[in-house]
Amino acid sequence: MKTVTCTAPVNIAVIKYWGKRDEKLILPLNDSISFTLSQDDMCAKTTVTISPKFTEDKFWLNGKEESLENPRIQNCLKEIRRRASKRKLEGSAEDILNWHIHICSANNFPTAAGLASSAAGYACLVYALGQVYGIEGDLSSIARQGSGSACRSIYGGLVRWHKGELEDGTDSIARPIAPADHFPNLRVIICVANSERKKTGSTDGMRQTVQTSKLMQHRIKESVVSRMESMIKAIKDKNWPAFCDLTMADSNEMHAVCQDTFPPCVYMTDTSHAVANLVHQYNDLKISQRDINHKVCYTFDAGPNACLFVPGAVVEEVLALLLFAFPPSSSQSPAEYVRGIQAHPVTLSKELTSMAGEDIESGKLMYLIHTKVGDGPRVIPDADESLLDATTGLPKPASGAA
Amino acid sequence: MKTVTCTAPVNIAVIKYWGKRDEKLILPLNDSISFTLSQDDMCAKTTVTISPKFTEDKFWLNGKEESLENPRIQNCLKEIRRRASKRKLEGSAEDILNWHIHICSANNFPTAAGLASSAAGYACLVYALGQVYGIEGDLSSIARQGSGSACRSIYGGLVRWHKGELEDGTDSIARPIAPADHFPNLRVIICVANSERKKTGSTDGMRQTVQTSKLMQHRIKESVVSRMESMIKAIKDKNWPAFCDLTMADSNEMHAVCQDTFPPCVYMTDTSHAVANLVHQYNDLKISQRDINHKVCYTFDAGPNACLFVPGAVVEEVLALLLFAFPPSSSQSPAEYVRGIQAHPVTLSKELTSMAGEDIESGKLMYLIHTKVGDGPRVIPDADESLLDATTGLPKPASGAA
Repeated sequence: MKTVTCTAPVNIAVIKYWGKRDEKLILPLNDSISFTLSQDDMCAKTTVTISPKFTEDKFWLNGKEESLENPRIQNCLKEIRRRASKRKLEGSAEDILNWHIHICSANNFPTAAGLASSAAGYACLVYALGQVYGIEGDLSSIARQGSGSACRSIYGGLVRWHKGELEDGTDSIARPIAPADHFPNLRVIICVANSERKKTGSTDGMRQTVQTSKLMQHRIKESVVSRMESMIKAIKDKNWPAFCDLTMADSNEMHAVCQDTFPPCVYMTDTSHAVANLVHQYNDLKISQRDINHKVCYTFDAGPNACLFVPGAVVEEVLALLLFAFPPSSSQSPAEYVRGIQAHPVTLSKELTSMAGEDIESGKLMYLIHTKVGDGPRVIPDADESLLDATTGLPKPASGAA
Repeated sequence: MKTVTCTAPVNIAVIKYWGKRDEKLILPLNDSISFTLSQDDMCAKTTVTISPKFTEDKFWLNGKEESLENPRIQNCLKEIRRRASKRKLEGSAEDILNWHIHICSANNFPTAAGLASSAAGYACLVYALGQVYGIEGDLSSIARQGSGSACRSIYGGLVRWHKGELEDGTDSIARPIAPADHFPNLRVIICVANSERKKTGSTDGMRQTVQTSKLMQHRIKESVVSRMESMIKAIKDKNWPAFCDLTMADSNEMHAVCQDTFPPCVYMTDTSHAVANLVHQYNDLKISQRDINHKVCYTFDAGPNACLFVPGAVVEEVLALLLFAFPPSSSQSPAEYVRGIQAHPVTLSKELTSMAGEDIESGKLMYLIHTKVGDGPRVIPDADESLLDATTGLPKPASGAA
């Protein structure tokens, strides 16, 4: 019997992945770049146990047994086993490929909130499988076959996913391009929006964009290519104001091609646009104060939540501004509303409070998560942290309610 | 003393004008096409009086005296006078160019609702001036210098505004391309949305799009050019389903380049997107019923209001669907809510009511205007209809509260 427990992080793209050139292998039309977020506040956790005593493969996700027949999970498992069998296995180790497998996964944040849970989940699964079978070398191309953006969660800090050129996708891999502290003391605030909108899933959404948006051709052939170059330069130069503008422009362009899809794929809501507008007003103030290194930027994935990147020096001011402009509903305490890293409230200047406008309404956002940039997946050696019982190989009762 | 009273229509573009190549002459980056709407339900009305007894030029707009120094009005006046002076004036008629002018204008619909009031207003002003000074020939290039899209309100039915190629803009004119009954019994429903959003005016918005949106280059060079060709063909062939898809695609593309503007210009709200989504669901039903000639299409200008083009055979069904999905606020009667052409309520099938989803909320729309396609500006000979008193040349008391 062999067991390993790992955690893996969420990542947030600053140059977006939107559109595949190969649906089956999950190969993207363009390179993308992301920040990996701290696992202290959000992570997926997976325990993988293999044993000659298990009579079948089993899979539990967030406390519920699920089928392993999911083709994306199967693709990951098949590729892991193929790599393992290619290794020179010593002695009896060859047998472990014939042992059945138990997999138990859970997220420590709500799956439904649209917070890239599948990226963290597949990265964690593949990383844990890699540990169990002793796989060496790149795991990102395997994680990619679970969920495209999962390949970026295999590494920490700033990560670039190279779209690759080969038809078999073997060069479509992620690589770390800068460590977690590249922009020192950088904070992340995720504004989880209330939304009743029935949204198009990102797999369907990006397929429809590729098929119907004329503007998408221009994004892929020209604008995202040149923006990627500018972004790499901004990162290399640690040019934070340029990084901010490029991040916002790419998010805007992604949502523009979604709007240009037929029928339109609309992910941002009035609340999303209100958060974006607040960020632009905040930045205008910083520009007028000649304080552009304290600019903030937003990015939006295929949902209404804003993800803000905020220099640590102004994070308390920005949190206070968000609390003022988007007050919690009356039933929420500030601690329930602002989660993650503790921050001390600051008093806002009139210049800042006036940005909120006249139509302040509580409950537009469900809560905020204050976190930071972080490292890649981790092995958790402490047996108490395992999601599977060491004797039975079945989920521990406590882990059922994750 | 010479006086004339005219009315002029609103127009709604189906291929959008968004972006100027010359700010001063108001020359657009692309051709556009619009429907002129019926003046029975919405129009601007202008009385122009010239008299040797007047001691100064005066201007009243919606009951309030305004300065004539506005450069856009001055451009129109200057061009009209230039054209008049070029004419062979018989006898003493030359003198009228030295007479002072009184202009009184009013809209019969709320200016604030973002319903292209400036297009109707400038078309009406220029048409009335043209009558007073006996100008012959094209007036659209003069109206264009008041407000770009005003040039299309000089004609009825379907109108094409040719962007023109000349630097002086003399070939940037509108021309009727099909009469008002080209698509017989076509109806128009304007859904006036409640919105508190502070919006970017269209002049600033389009300038910012031209300056900052990378996708805009593609719209101007390629996609709007090919869509214009397809639209001309769809109109020639009276291909209503193709017309609908092209209209919606062009509206979506315009709002996509607005979203791609930096900072983004966002005009559509959650309510706007909900109306668009309802139209797509309605069309999916019509497609499944092999009834594509009863498709509906939407278009959105630089504001949250949806303009729907609806075949007459289904207009009562569509109105009933809108009333169901977007109920009036409790204080409104159905007659206050649905304005314009009278329609008889129909009972909706379950297929239709299920389109409204679960989050039906009253008051998202302020009211609906049910109207149709119409003709170009008219001279109103009835002296009772004049906005200026025949003796004093000052606004009649009644017209002050328009």
